[in-house]
Amino acid sequence: MNTKKEKMIPVMEIFGPTVQGEGMVIGQKTMFVRTAGCDYQCAWCDSAFTWDGSAKDEIRRLTAREIVNELKATGGDAFSHVTISGGNPALIRHMGELVEHLHEQNIDVALETQGSIWQDWFLSIDDLTLSPKPPSSKMKPNLQILDDIISRLKDQPSNNYSLKVVVFNDEDLDFAESIHKRYPNVLFFVQTGNNQVHEENDKRLVSDLISRYEWLIDRVMERAALNRVRVLPQLHTYVWGNKRGV
Amino acid sequence: MNTKKEKMIPVMEIFGPTVQGEGMVIGQKTMFVRTAGCDYQCAWCDSAFTWDGSAKDEIRRLTAREIVNELKATGGDAFSHVTISGGNPALIRHMGELVEHLHEQNIDVALETQGSIWQDWFLSIDDLTLSPKPPSSKMKPNLQILDDIISRLKDQPSNNYSLKVVVFNDEDLDFAESIHKRYPNVLFFVQTGNNQVHEENDKRLVSDLISRYEWLIDRVMERAALNRVRVLPQLHTYVWGNKRGV
Repeated sequence: MNTKKEKMIPVMEIFGPTVQGEGMVIGQKTMFVRTAGCDYQCAWCDSAFTWDGSAKDEIRRLTAREIVNELKATGGDAFSHVTISGGNPALIRHMGELVEHLHEQNIDVALETQGSIWQDWFLSIDDLTLSPKPPSSKMKPNLQILDDIISRLKDQPSNNYSLKVVVFNDEDLDFAESIHKRYPNVLFFVQTGNNQVHEENDKRLVSDLISRYEWLIDRVMERAALNRVRVLPQLHTYVWGNKRGV
Repeated sequence: MNTKKEKMIPVMEIFGPTVQGEGMVIGQKTMFVRTAGCDYQCAWCDSAFTWDGSAKDEIRRLTAREIVNELKATGGDAFSHVTISGGNPALIRHMGELVEHLHEQNIDVALETQGSIWQDWFLSIDDLTLSPKPPSSKMKPNLQILDDIISRLKDQPSNNYSLKVVVFNDEDLDFAESIHKRYPNVLFFVQTGNNQVHEENDKRLVSDLISRYEWLIDRVMERAALNRVRVLPQLHTYVWGNKRGV
């Protein structure tokens, strides 16, 4: 099926159409392509199965064309937007091929990454979310790399890319504030964390997540340094709890 | 206090900072100025107190400067964004004064209106939401007026304005689809309606509103004519139920 020259992308799951539950295009009807593999191991990662080995048998190595075909087979004609998430899809140098194939079919492409790696194909992404990880993740983002990424994006339309920081506690919010101060002109989102990624009681989960959202709203409202900020939950968890593939 | 020349704005309430719970800048930290008076009487209006006489004693006639002063007194320096809502604030011909005063202080301004009336000061609004009312409202939007409004906005940046249709049932969704087809290049949102604006049991309300959101997502996912669409709830009702002033 694949010619020798085609490059493979490690795919964990392809699903949709559904709504994007978070960030700059929250609510957008979209398909998801979730890649396997990550350079981070966030303490609270809600997609740890992409890198912790627990779902390694589900990983498939597909060409960009095969991914497009599977998107079409799954979503039919009921989508015009694809979100590439992970793991960290920025690990994949030749992802630009997939972006090109989708654009050829008039399909917009969003990407979610922590901002630890630059790829030239970022310039083709319609909705790019850079999500540097706060202290609670136990990761330590390299801000020189993030500086470089942001500077390479400076000629893009301002609504094509954004920063998003997940916040679990006050220390995380201080980190979010420092990121917003560092890049004051970049569209900026703070988002409630989900510290119960294994909770299966949806009612209890939603009630707790809404309380966490209210806590985050209250904290952001107090801070004049966080005026040009959007505060959002992960909407999909309100609807589907911790289920995968929706 | 007021010189004779200053024009008065009928204000129902001023509150914040809080988050914008819906539409194109959902999650944005903002102050709200809610004006009194409406040319519509939607069957399910969630702010009927602005026009049904039930809160007429709360209406104050304020100048643009007085409104700015009250915003500052209420929100201090913890805001850079003001949302003007109603009622229908587009009824007020001289609202442009308030927009100017706010812009002078580097404060962005959002406006929410049904799109039944054009005002030249719409061109100064940073986030303009036009929300033509669906059949369940029992109102009949004049689409010639909406055509005119959209055509006057055509040179604005595309992320400065949007259409939003509230959807309670399939007939409303058909209406939403017809609006999206009429203005395919305008940023488009569909939003769950709240048919229990007097429910005081927050848990019951939220559970029901989330079910309605899931219903709307499912319906939009099926329709290829609704691919470039964002589907959102009213987030503030998840956090604060039907409370006013938050």
